[in-house]
Parts: sequence; structure tokens; C-alpha cells
Amino acid sequence: MAVYTDVPYEDLAAFIASYDIGNLLTFHGISEGVENSNYLLQTESGTYILTLYEKRVKAEDLPFFLCVMGHLAARGLSCPLPVQTRQGTVLQTLCGRPAALFTFLKGISLRRFEAAHCYSLGIAMARMHQAGMDLPMQRPNSLSVAGWQELFTACGDQADTVHSGLRTLIADSLDEVRHRWPVDLPCGLIHADLFPDNVFFAAGTTEVSGLIDFYFACTDILAYDLAIVLNAWCFEADGSFNATRARALLAGYRSLRPLSTAELDALPLLARGAALRFLLTRLYDWINTPPDALVKRKDPMDYVRRLRFHRQIHTPAEYGL
Amino acid sequence: MAVYTDVPYEDLAAFIASYDIGNLLTFHGISEGVENSNYLLQTESGTYILTLYEKRVKAEDLPFFLCVMGHLAARGLSCPLPVQTRQGTVLQTLCGRPAALFTFLKGISLRRFEAAHCYSLGIAMARMHQAGMDLPMQRPNSLSVAGWQELFTACGDQADTVHSGLRTLIADSLDEVRHRWPVDLPCGLIHADLFPDNVFFAAGTTEVSGLIDFYFACTDILAYDLAIVLNAWCFEADGSFNATRARALLAGYRSLRPLSTAELDALPLLARGAALRFLLTRLYDWINTPPDALVKRKDPMDYVRRLRFHRQIHTPAEYGL
Repeated sequence: MAVYTDVPYEDLAAFIASYDIGNLLTFHGISEGVENSNYLLQTESGTYILTLYEKRVKAEDLPFFLCVMGHLAARGLSCPLPVQTRQGTVLQTLCGRPAALFTFLKGISLRRFEAAHCYSLGIAMARMHQAGMDLPMQRPNSLSVAGWQELFTACGDQADTVHSGLRTLIADSLDEVRHRWPVDLPCGLIHADLFPDNVFFAAGTTEVSGLIDFYFACTDILAYDLAIVLNAWCFEADGSFNATRARALLAGYRSLRPLSTAELDALPLLARGAALRFLLTRLYDWINTPPDALVKRKDPMDYVRRLRFHRQIHTPAEYGL
Repeated sequence: MAVYTDVPYEDLAAFIASYDIGNLLTFHGISEGVENSNYLLQTESGTYILTLYEKRVKAEDLPFFLCVMGHLAARGLSCPLPVQTRQGTVLQTLCGRPAALFTFLKGISLRRFEAAHCYSLGIAMARMHQAGMDLPMQRPNSLSVAGWQELFTACGDQADTVHSGLRTLIADSLDEVRHRWPVDLPCGLIHADLFPDNVFFAAGTTEVSGLIDFYFACTDILAYDLAIVLNAWCFEADGSFNATRARALLAGYRSLRPLSTAELDALPLLARGAALRFLLTRLYDWINTPPDALVKRKDPMDYVRRLRFHRQIHTPAEYGL
């Protein structure tokens, strides 16, 4: 929740002039995004989002992310479309930072949702996975098993200061996923961060109106994307698992893209991996972010509870799927 | 630059239903405002600003501020108009905070501006002062001489830790303005915080398209509002006084509302008071805000330089006016 880079109008007006979108009428810094600075712009031709990439996003990954959004939007998926300059480029520099301009998506991200929203999200994910099949670029997932090991090395010694027994829980889980992580499941473009903040619904409906924030997108196991969403969308605030939502999510997904038995059987392990991934990044941020910093820390304990839950599950049937 | 209160869509949708403005389509927290949380909303009927009042704004002052904006907008001044609910009220509660909805003003606040912008601002100020003449409410300026004395008492002992000799400079200046502060100049509604952030220009022009942020508005000496703007708009970054801009500001103002000799003669003293007011609030915030806090502290030294400058001036002619 922050605008990190303060963009003066005069600089922005010069930047906008490189696009064929009319003159700037008004602009406001918006509070979305913890990795980037975002501005909502109105010009004579409509509404746009301007993103300035701060240091947490690697500049060498930007062409991939912009390629993903352009590719998906061209295939009819509702996601921000990078706008081309008059010269045909999509990545520029503004206030010393890499910057890009995107079409504006209408819609609302929800805090409370039901099974029908999850069904609709499942459909949107299957559509995205299918549309990503002929993506011309690849990007390995830097936050997969090897990345988790690095995070654990960086903060393992302090894990027990956050929660007693956490170090052992992580070490055991990491050991298991490292040995059992699937190598033969269908891979392709995944979003890898489809939390409720990043899914827009047409207001007052259960229809997904758009997906945003593709800055963790990568090439990885398609079913792992579902495992992330199981974690992010199918638990109650008290940590209990909502099997109705999980069933709806998978039903929506399978209505467009069937899941193989191997993919279904891998779900409990993939879900443990996904819980471990968010547990580790949150733990790292928790240890390395002062409590009063600008960026709000997310409590790693939510994912300790999820990980413990998934470790008791051995077949998809035990999820109620 | 912050959104302090995180408003869930579900609560906002219920809030919006009390207005006759159609359904909510999209909303974004915006980074403007250090006293309030602000959201930019799009509904079926247009664009709006939602303001939630945080603790720095006194709840008992809100009816005055909303009255000011409604009054000025009704007289054709371009400022945010509080939208009435179906029940005809303008102040409600959202997420436990007082909240109001406003029409959206197009325009751009400038970082760099010229004399022509100041001329246009002078006209807008005169129009506001005239339109405020029949305002049905009054609010004494809590940040006038008595308020400055309180601020000085609260932080005087630490003034010299910020800048050597600052305590004496403030004490002497305060003593002077307390004894010489005018009591017989025309009074009325003043904005009292017309910094460049709070003035919108139609993009690419020198025309003022709107005034915002009336949360310091009060009943005080009209020429004091000009003295504030002389401080806020007529100094260069290096502290030098830009007499061309000052002349343009006053020329614009006087083209609509003539200034009496008494008002003109009082300007140097009023400008010292205005410099002292912003020096003291900045000094107080500087001493009482941790350097790494969410709210960015403004350097009080800018106003030390301005105050020293005004203390050498004894007639408006010495400003080049």
C-alpha cells in the first residue's frame, strides 16, 4: 500500500506524449501494489494504469511479464494490456525507473467470497493456462523448491523466535517436498500469486472480470497454480478448510481443462509446497521488516496452520474433492 | 501520502447504496491527503472521491468544512461538492470513521509554475473570498497567533536542536506578531492552506480548474490567505523571493477584489505570521515524528528562511509589489 516514487506532472506529461492516447487530464497515485508504484491516469482517450517498477522487481524479468500480459490480452483474457508507444515499445523509463502503461480493468477485488466466485476463478485459471500454452518466452520459477531452501537458510535460525517448533516443521516439510516434488506433470505459464487482491469481479456478480499483477508469473507445474489458489481462497480466517469452495474451484477449472489422475494425486503435495512457499516468504519478511515499516508485514502463522493441515492430507479425496 | 483505513468492498457497496449514484464499478485507494484516507470511485453515474476522516481532523469541525464546500460549489466555484445521500445528509460513518463522498475534480497539481499560474490563482482566491461572504457558519482559526504560542510552548525547548538560534528567532517573531497583529482588516472565509498540492490547473494551461482540501478553512483576515500563498508560491527552491510571481498573484486577486491600503500595508507582517505558522507546525511535526514514519516530515528550514526574509521587509514596495 504505497506510492514509492513521486512523479511530477511535468515529467509525466512528457512521458505520456510518447503514446498515442491524447493529453493527460488527471492522475492520482494509488495504494495498490507492494512491489511497484502505481498511478491511475485519465487522458482524453480513457483511463490507464501507470506502473513504475521499484527495486524488488528485477529489470531483466520485465520483458517476460509484459510479454505475458500482452499475450494473454491478445487471446481475449481480461488482464492489463501494456500500451505501446508510438515507436512500438512497451517498456520505458520515468523518474529513473523502468515504467509501463496499461489499460485499466474495471472490477472489484473481494475480501469475502463464496463457492460461486471460486468456480468462476477456476474457469479463468484454466483459460489462462490454455492461453499461455503458446507463450513465446519462459521464466523458471525462482520461488520453487531451490528458492525455498535459500529462504530457509537465510532465516531458519530465527524461525523458532517467531513460533516454537517452526524450524523443525519447515525443515521436515522442505525435506519431503524436495524428495517427492513431481517432475512429470504438465507445465506452462502460471500466475503463481492469484490471491484475492489480484482477481477482479464485475461488481455485485460472481463473474471474474480480470486478473492483475503478473509479477510472479513463471513457467511451472500448472496444478501448482491451483495448489496456491487452494491455499489462498479455500481457508477460513480461523484456519479451517472450506471444502465447498475447493470443490467449486476445481469444478470450474476442470470444466475447461481436465486434470489427469497424476495431477489430482499430486495436489496434497503441491499444496504443502505452496503453503511452504508463502510461509517462507512471509517469515523472511517478518524477520527482516521492522514492525513499523511502510510495508505491512503479513503474519506467517496463517501459513503454518495451512502447512500443518496439508501434511495430514494424503489423497485429494481427503480434501473433499 | 497514505490510505490509513482499508475499506472492504462489501462495506463500501452498502455505503454507496445510500446515495443515488448507481452501482459501484471500481475503487482505488489514492495516496493524496496526509490527514485523511481517500478513495477514487467509479460508479454507473461517474467518478467520485470518498474521504474517511482520520483522527487528525476534529469531528466537530466537519460540518463547517462540508458547509464551506457545498456553499462555494453552489456559487459556481470549482471545488469538491459533498454528495447528498437519499436522506439529504452529507456526513456518514464508514469503517468506524466519519466519511463523506465528493464530486471528482479534473485537473493537475503542479510542481513547477509561472507567474501566469499565480495570476490565475489570485483570481480564484478573490472569487472564493467573495463567495464566502455569505457563508452561514464561522470557525475561528485555531492556528492563528494563540495557536502559534501553544506550538512554541510545546516545542520551543527543542528548537535549537533543529537549528542554532531558532528558539530566539521564533520568540522574537512571535512577540512582534502578537503585539502588532491587525484587528481591523476585512475578515471572512479563508482556505488557509492553498499550497500547490491543493490547486488544480486544467492540464497544459495556466487556468485554475479547482481548489481542494478545505480542512484548514476558517474565518480570518482575508489578506492573511494571500500572505500564506505568497509564502507557498513565491519562493524558489533556494529560498529566493520571486517578485514576478508575487506581483502576478496580487494583480489577479485585485482584478476581482480590490485591496485597501491597510491590507497592503499589513502584508509584510501577515507574511511573517504565515511563515511563523508553517515553521511552527513543521517544527512540531519534525520533533514529534520519527524520521522513518509513514508520514513524510517537511523540513522546517524552508520556513526559517522565509521568516528571515519577511523580517527584513517593511513595506509592500520592498516585495516589488
